[in-house]
Formats: sequence, structure tokens, C-alpha cells
Amino acid sequence: MPAAFADRFVRCARRLGHPLCVGIDPHLTEIPRTFRSGAMEHGDPETAAAVERWCFALLDRVTGRVAAVKPQSACFEALGPAGAAVLARVLAEARARGLLVVLDAKRGDIGSTAEAYAAAYLRKGAPFACDALTVNAYLGLDTLEPFVAAAAESGGGVFVVLRSSNPGARDLQDLPAPSRPLYQGLAAALAAKGPLLRGPETEWSGLGVVVGATWPEESRHVRELLPRSLFLVPGYGAQGAGARDAVAGFVRGPDGRLEGGLVASSRAIGFPEPGREADAAGWERAVDRALDAAIADLTSAIG
Amino acid sequence: MPAAFADRFVRCARRLGHPLCVGIDPHLTEIPRTFRSGAMEHGDPETAAAVERWCFALLDRVTGRVAAVKPQSACFEALGPAGAAVLARVLAEARARGLLVVLDAKRGDIGSTAEAYAAAYLRKGAPFACDALTVNAYLGLDTLEPFVAAAAESGGGVFVVLRSSNPGARDLQDLPAPSRPLYQGLAAALAAKGPLLRGPETEWSGLGVVVGATWPEESRHVRELLPRSLFLVPGYGAQGAGARDAVAGFVRGPDGRLEGGLVASSRAIGFPEPGREADAAGWERAVDRALDAAIADLTSAIG
Repeated sequence: MPAAFADRFVRCARRLGHPLCVGIDPHLTEIPRTFRSGAMEHGDPETAAAVERWCFALLDRVTGRVAAVKPQSACFEALGPAGAAVLARVLAEARARGLLVVLDAKRGDIGSTAEAYAAAYLRKGAPFACDALTVNAYLGLDTLEPFVAAAAESGGGVFVVLRSSNPGARDLQDLPAPSRPLYQGLAAALAAKGPLLRGPETEWSGLGVVVGATWPEESRHVRELLPRSLFLVPGYGAQGAGARDAVAGFVRGPDGRLEGGLVASSRAIGFPEPGREADAAGWERAVDRALDAAIADLTSAIG
Repeated sequence: MPAAFADRFVRCARRLGHPLCVGIDPHLTEIPRTFRSGAMEHGDPETAAAVERWCFALLDRVTGRVAAVKPQSACFEALGPAGAAVLARVLAEARARGLLVVLDAKRGDIGSTAEAYAAAYLRKGAPFACDALTVNAYLGLDTLEPFVAAAAESGGGVFVVLRSSNPGARDLQDLPAPSRPLYQGLAAALAAKGPLLRGPETEWSGLGVVVGATWPEESRHVRELLPRSLFLVPGYGAQGAGARDAVAGFVRGPDGRLEGGLVASSRAIGFPEPGREADAAGWERAVDRALDAAIADLTSAIG
């Protein structure tokens, strides 16, 4: 069995000196011209091939520079069955390159249905095997169990959406559950489950939570409730949150730097110059510049 | 544009005289021997072919007898890329036979990601086109907008998970949001959005909600808050709830019978004699008997 997800991620992030996780979100309208072919419409197989070229080119840029990538399942599902095949190949290629893969799919359902999702993504030999999966707990804490059990068996991680990065996060997540907002109530309930999926080396827990970079104050509250849960932090970069906000819920590690999560950036890396046409080499240079900038920004924020 | 989902469903359910919706949940361990081939393991293409034969055989049994079917996305995802191809063919075949298809996928995410899910399932020309989709609103009401917009354009429906059928439904959904439990708060917020996706003929709304048959009292509360929203009711049959509980949130229609939702049954129909080996003809007879029983049960409950 591979080491626990939390140990694998934290070890690599410490070595690299930053927590950047590059999102792989192939929105069709944003794929640069140098990769485009076919109708660039959902359901067209040639379009799926174009998406695959962009994904692999992005993997080329980030391999060795970040600990993890985060493919967005929705973008592949929109391509139909051909997109599922591309997703499987992208997941396998990323893992073969030593990148940790967090599949952003926000899955969640009850009983045997949750078992089927765990079989799809987390169980050993899963057809879409990834290192960690984002899940939605609205249906109840019992619905997390199949995901956690599969992750425990395969050395995987699970990120429960707690505080999303959008303005509408307030609608349900801020409703005052007994003495505090719902998202804090959910955090407390996760804390009560004890140290699940904990990495023996770093003592971080791979039963993590999604907390948007757009909510730094909320991130600190969540950290108090979940002192050793890894955070997956969306909303950094394109959605407007800065590096300091993104690491607001991080804590000092043994090397004195802030740690405790993955900071995800998608568009700012993969589509660095939207609307400006560039050839493949130009796109590569732009991605490398965007990657350099995000890494420098985050390295400074955790220092 | 096709008529509104709510009108299409209610019209057909009135004609058939019952609200049964048959779930298509191909859990591998339960597929009867007569359909099995290959390893019957996730990721094996021969297994996907076996699942497809079972799905099509089930469509043969239910066509003309129920208004809608509800494929469970998780079971197809667990089969890998081959499962995505099977799902696309099952969706297309069901719709070609005049069945309404509610894809149970519990999707939900923010902004452009929700747009990608809507493009995958609800938008005109979607590669996995279905008539309605189940969604999860924990991330906020703004996350529902792309789904509702796509459904409005294509004559589709959207079912928001409000009250799931599992025991853990209590964990978050019962937390006391201001003056009432969270699921009622969510229902009230949906009510405040007004009559979205309303069918002009029946005046039912295709922005529906998922309310488990295992919670009849809660169903009545939700009906007070959402008087014209269609309910999608899981948990009838195999999960232990009876027909009267399943229609607890229904109201009298113009013909004097209870209406206002779809009552879903999966295992009890598709796997009617678990563990007992039968040839194809025996399985067909058992499915027909289970279907007759569920239809008679529900017809009586709404009378």
C-alpha cells in the first residue's frame, strides 16, 4: 500500500517549498488556438482529442514543479464518453509522472451508491483512480464512510466541501446551526470522527476539507476546529483571492513555514493569456511564467 | 422546444394512473447470472457489455408501463470509460422509447463548473442528455442557476436534494437553521425563487426536490413550503418505506388522485429475486411481477 495521502502531499510540498496545486479545467471556450481542432463543441470526438493535447501539454509544464494537480470532472463529463476516456488517460499519466491527483468531482450519495463512487475513483484498481476526491456531505456523515474506507485501503484522501469560494456559499453554509454557522457545525462533526486517514509521518489527516481562499476569516475558524485536516483551497488567483488569504488557515510546520493544505489555481495557469493567440511555444512560456509567479507568490506567503 | 418536464411527467403519470419511476442501478454483485459475462469487475469492458444487456432488458420490461426511469450515474462511472459509453446509449434508448429519464447524479459546483455539468446533462445536444438531473445545493443557490437555465432552454427538470432517505439525513439536514431545520430552510429559499420551470398545462414546477420516502412527516412539511414543486421520492421498496409514506407529500390532482412527484424504485424492480438464479425468461417474469406489484401498490395509495 502506498503511504497515506496526507504524508505524500505534505512531504512533497515541504520539499518543493510551496502548496500550489494546478487545476486542470478544460473549459472549451478557453482552450488556446494552438490546441484547438474539430468543432470545439461538447460531444465531438475531435474536440476531446484537442482537450487531451492541452491536458498533456499542461502536465508537461507542471511535472516536477507542483505536488498535485486537480482535474475538474465536470469539464470531462461535458465531452461525453470520449471525455471519460480522456479523463482516465490524464489521471493515469499524471500519476505515472509522480504527481498527486485530486479529482474535483464533488460526489456524494447514500449507501451502495457512495460505494459505487468510491469504486469509480478511490478503491484500489478503480477505473478513474486518483489520489484524493472532493465530496459533498449534505446527505449525511454516514455517506462519507464508503469514501473514507476506500481511501484508507488505497492510501487516498477525501476532501469534504465545507466552505465553497462563491458568494452563494452564504446561503446554506452560513445558516446558524445551533451555536454556529452550518459549515462550522460540519467541521465540528468531522472533528468528532477523530483522526481518520492520518499520515503517520506528518500527522496531517487526509480526511480534508474544501475551504475557499475567498474566506480567510472562516478558514481560521475551521482550522481551530480541525487542527490537522488538510485544506483544499480553491479561489486563489482567477477568483480574486491573494496568496495570504489562501493560506489563512495554514499553521507553522517543523521547518517554520506555513503548511496544512493545497492551494489550487486553474485558469491562471492553464489559460494564462486568455484571448491572446499564441503558438505552442508561446503558450508554454506563458504557462511557465504564470507558474513561476504563483509559486513565488505562495512561497513568499508561507515563509 | 419540448413541453416543460413537469407537464410531460404529470401528463403521463395521470394517464398511467401511478407515479412509479424505475431506477436503473446496475450494482455488479446484483446483476442476475443470465446477464453476467467477463470478470464482473469494475473497469472490465466485457462487464460493461453485460451491464448494458441488463439495462436494455430492463427498459424492455418498463417501456409503456412507467412514465420515467432513473439511471444511477455512480454505477456507470464505476465501470470506467466503457461505462460512460453504456450510460450514453441507455439514456438515448430510454428517451427514444418515450420514457422520461431522470439522471441521478447529485451534481453541484460553482459558476463555470456548474455550467459544464449543465452542458454534460441538461443543455440541448448534451452528450448525456436526460430530461431531469438531481443536484446538490450545499454550495449555494447561485450554483443552481446554470442547471435551471439549461433546463428552461431544453424543457428539462432539476431535482434539488432536500431530504435524503438515509438515517444520516439528520446530520446536516435537521440542524436548526434559524427557526426550522436546514432542509426546510432550503425549501423556503427555493420557494422564494418563485415558479421556475413551471409547466403551463399542469402548473407543476420542474424545479423539484428529492425527499426520501422514509420521511413522510418531513414530506408534508416540504409540501407546505413548496406547494407546486415535483418531488422525486427515493427509498420506496427496498429501503423499507411503504407506498403511503412515499406519497405523503402528494396532493389531490384534477382527477381526484394524489399527484406531485415521482416515486422511485430500483432494486425491487431490477433485481427482483436476489440470489436466486433464473434464466432470462424467469428474470423477465419476476420483473413483470415486481412491476405489477409496485404499480398496484402505488395506484392504490394515490386513489
